[in-house]
Amino acid sequence: MTEIIEAEKLKQMINKIETIEQERLESSDLLKESFNEAKSMGFDVKIIKHVLKLRKKDKDALAEEDNLIDLYRGALGI
Amino acid sequence: MTEIIEAEKLKQMINKIETIEQERLESSDLLKESFNEAKSMGFDVKIIKHVLKLRKKDKDALAEEDNLIDLYRGALGI
Amino acid sequence: MTEIIEAEKLKQMINKIETIEQERLESSDLLKESFNEAKSMGFDVKIIKHVLKLRKKDKDALAEEDNLIDLYRGALGI
Amino acid sequence: MTEIIEAEKLKQMINKIETIEQERLESSDLLKESFNEAKSMGFDVKIIKHVLKLRKKDKDALAEEDNLIDLYRGALGI
Repeated sequence: MTEIIEAEKLKQMINKIETIEQERLESSDLLKESFNEAKSMGFDVKIIKHVLKLRKKDKDALAEEDNLIDLYRGALGI
Repeated sequence: MTEIIEAEKLKQMINKIETIEQERLESSDLLKESFNEAKSMGFDVKIIKHVLKLRKKDKDALAEEDNLIDLYRGALGI
Repeated sequence: MTEIIEAEKLKQMINKIETIEQERLESSDLLKESFNEAKSMGFDVKIIKHVLKLRKKDKDALAEEDNLIDLYRGALGI
Repeated sequence: MTEIIEAEKLKQMINKIETIEQERLESSDLLKESFNEAKSMGFDVKIIKHVLKLRKKDKDALAEEDNLIDLYRGALGI
């Protein structure tokens, strides 16, 4: 990379990235609001986050995982 | 929290959260694309990420930080 | 903080911290080796990490969590 | 992986991992203590963490990085 850079192109790229970062930040804020709303409705946010992860898993993979967890928990007496 | 929950309300909340998570994921993908684009233009992505952080700092705080870093680096010979 | 710092004290502190960081790094490497060993013995590392977390929880809290997870999973059909 | 696991071997592995995790936790606590000590001596912990990262870099790579940061900051007026 040569020691000089195209300042104008860098500025455009930085502005573009900052705009997208801002949108992502807004989504994160919306998520926080939703979790607070869920909490105010009496839901357990930690459990909601847990089931959100489970919903992203393939059904068979989840069933296999459930089996293994039961197996390991049984062996360890947890 | 009683042992029974309002399944319908939980489903609505989960769907709402998953929609926002999806939007955030799309922003993250857009960010990745932008960094790849910057790289293809010859920019150093690690440096871009560094200056993005600096741009979020208050000017005086950044000047103070620069001073301290120079002071510590001088003392340690880095 | 005055603009001058006690370079000698800073060096001592940095060395002390780097020594502890090194010890922590060695523990992390040992952990990786153990997980690899567990994998080679046919254990599922992801499940091992999951049950390690469960073992750190208080028994009653874990039982309550298990109940809630079953309740939420039932409501959502997962 | 067969549905049955060797419970005894699993217990041994879990105990081994928990011992190492405990050692790592102790290192992390020692690190926190050191940073608190540095703070009480008037050092800026955030700057200490920054220079700790710089010290881990190869001298030439660090010099190159410094150049690029100056170049990008100049182009962006930061």
